[in-house]
Amino acid sequence: MSHTLSPLAPKTYPDMPSIGGVRFATAAVGIKYAERTDVLLMLFDAPAAVAGVFTRSRCPSAAVDWCRANLPGGTARALLVNSGNANAFTGRKGAEATALSARYVAEATGCAPQEVFLASTGVIGEPLDAHKFDGVVQRLAEEAREQDWVAAARAIMTTDTFPKAATRTADLGGRTVTLNGIAKGAGMVAPDMATMLSFLVTDAPIAAPVLQALLSEVVETSYNAITIDGDTSTSDTVLLFATGAAGGTSIERADDPRLGAFRAALADLTRELAQWVAKDGEGARKFVEVRVTGAESDASAKRIALSIANSPLVKTAVAGEDANWGRVVMAVGKAGEPADRDRLAIWFGDVRVAVAGERDPDYSETAATEVMRRDEIPLTVDLGLGDGQARVWTCDLTKEYVAINGDYRS
Amino acid sequence: MSHTLSPLAPKTYPDMPSIGGVRFATAAVGIKYAERTDVLLMLFDAPAAVAGVFTRSRCPSAAVDWCRANLPGGTARALLVNSGNANAFTGRKGAEATALSARYVAEATGCAPQEVFLASTGVIGEPLDAHKFDGVVQRLAEEAREQDWVAAARAIMTTDTFPKAATRTADLGGRTVTLNGIAKGAGMVAPDMATMLSFLVTDAPIAAPVLQALLSEVVETSYNAITIDGDTSTSDTVLLFATGAAGGTSIERADDPRLGAFRAALADLTRELAQWVAKDGEGARKFVEVRVTGAESDASAKRIALSIANSPLVKTAVAGEDANWGRVVMAVGKAGEPADRDRLAIWFGDVRVAVAGERDPDYSETAATEVMRRDEIPLTVDLGLGDGQARVWTCDLTKEYVAINGDYRS
Repeated sequence: MSHTLSPLAPKTYPDMPSIGGVRFATAAVGIKYAERTDVLLMLFDAPAAVAGVFTRSRCPSAAVDWCRANLPGGTARALLVNSGNANAFTGRKGAEATALSARYVAEATGCAPQEVFLASTGVIGEPLDAHKFDGVVQRLAEEAREQDWVAAARAIMTTDTFPKAATRTADLGGRTVTLNGIAKGAGMVAPDMATMLSFLVTDAPIAAPVLQALLSEVVETSYNAITIDGDTSTSDTVLLFATGAAGGTSIERADDPRLGAFRAALADLTRELAQWVAKDGEGARKFVEVRVTGAESDASAKRIALSIANSPLVKTAVAGEDANWGRVVMAVGKAGEPADRDRLAIWFGDVRVAVAGERDPDYSETAATEVMRRDEIPLTVDLGLGDGQARVWTCDLTKEYVAINGDYRS
Repeated sequence: MSHTLSPLAPKTYPDMPSIGGVRFATAAVGIKYAERTDVLLMLFDAPAAVAGVFTRSRCPSAAVDWCRANLPGGTARALLVNSGNANAFTGRKGAEATALSARYVAEATGCAPQEVFLASTGVIGEPLDAHKFDGVVQRLAEEAREQDWVAAARAIMTTDTFPKAATRTADLGGRTVTLNGIAKGAGMVAPDMATMLSFLVTDAPIAAPVLQALLSEVVETSYNAITIDGDTSTSDTVLLFATGAAGGTSIERADDPRLGAFRAALADLTRELAQWVAKDGEGARKFVEVRVTGAESDASAKRIALSIANSPLVKTAVAGEDANWGRVVMAVGKAGEPADRDRLAIWFGDVRVAVAGERDPDYSETAATEVMRRDEIPLTVDLGLGDGQARVWTCDLTKEYVAINGDYRS
């Protein structure tokens, strides 16, 4: 899997500060590829509060089942992630593999298996041989020390061409707290989170139910607002851990006024990570922000935005640097949401190409083409009906996407 | 637009019998391309009964608006179709173009404009200059004589690589009646009919309301059961005309028992035409029949079948001749319909690759790969929940699809 680095990859990585109460280790176990780190172990020195959001697939992976079952406990001592095998659609063997994996970690760290969270990403349908973790997990637990966030992000990659990591700080009741996150995902990425994994850690002292409320809120404008191919994975997992190492009294209510800055930082961090996923879409050459305004509701705006962002014809037009706004009209029309053809207006960047249901008489093809040549293309549709609005992010559909996915298993 | 002929194109065309009461003519007007027939005029000697089904797009073309407005009249004297320009999202100019086109035909043939049906297919958003039809329509009306169905099918092509025509006969109350049809469509094709045009003519004596009931019924298992890219057009139009030239008393009720064979022939004809559209999907190299059984209802089965048929990851796997059933699981899971991961079974051709929620222990990769090498690939999913079933048809997603659509306007 040596795909060309996405041209949308970051030029540099942020300096990721350490977060108190958590240690990392990674290893190359050879789950699918030799000589490539494919296991990440995160250990929490004390029980961390944990929140999670998972795929809405009716066929979730065994790891998703495992996390869902343990989430009500509200505390985490460890996270074990592997790439190369999704442990999805693996029946009873899959459930056994999660139980065995968690047992290895529990024994190595002295916690309960229910405090071990798991995620797996990679090929679906191949049984995951959890025995491969035996010995490895024990060694990683001993080695785990510094937090190399970019190395951690690299260990969970599949068809990603670059690791994804981001950081924020926020004031929480007079103390500065830190929020770090990593993510992976490049294909089978759609709202409801597709083969998207993201792990977020903060040193803020926040109780699990509050973390859960915050996480459920921010996924709507981040991980659930990106799409690469409209294909929802069996394995999508976002986990947010709070170690409390920053000190201070624990926040026990989601409406605590001290949460204002933290909530904003979390929304900002998750949006950045989600955008990196879209920028690393399989075969992507261009990043597209689809903004819909003037819809009857925000939910309607989002459905229309996703209809545009998921349209193969819109995405191939972007790949071809073609300001083909007719296809945007098509995608608005097919969304099944309230729309009035004769009120539609469409912009590529600042160039209004259509207005009041027809081509903008002042529209300059040259100016529109100039916008299409950029790496990042803002596409705006105003429906002229109400106040509903939404933003979603996607990438173009290129021949490389087909090449990558026509030959994935071989 | 000289795309390579689809490898799934028919080797020969059927001998299309003439249908009494209808005459054709075609012309090359240069709407978009020079020296290519792009206008089809069908004339009915006497008023024909007419039924229609159109796109569900919220942004329909001016021609769709025109037909919808005139359909309640129930009679047609002419059909004018152009390729190269969809006359969609053209605002007031679009409506004026349809009125002018219909007036030319009405004046040339001595009928009312409301008896003229129109369809346009091609680029969206470019005003259609109906003045180009002036003189041409009059000449075509004079020339219209023999029925060259394949030539008619060719005149309505856009990115199609071959014309699509089919024929059936049926017994209707002791008389043999004939049903002929043509279709076009290769991209922007999805249920709700996408850039799909199909025109059907029979000499059976059937009243318009009965025709409408029959047509609305058969579209569900034909034109609304194919998808190429999930993109629904602004312009989808299926029209069914009945000249009555076969003689006999007119059928006035949809539950008339004499209709049995005709209904079956119409279903069969429309399914064949729809399948030709899927076989000419832009860049298609393989034809896929997706069959879902054991769903909670037929409607649920169809939604799951479409989720599979629209999945870029399933379609690229087919292009790569990869029996990647994990992606089929993914597509079942994302459909949002009732499904139990641990009851799923999946077949490629006769090869069962997964059963009871995991890889079939007897599954032979070699046998599955053998199936994937075929031109036509049957893919079956049994959900093990109920009696609901559905079949839909699609094609693979290839680099050529991206090439064709990344460069459509240029």
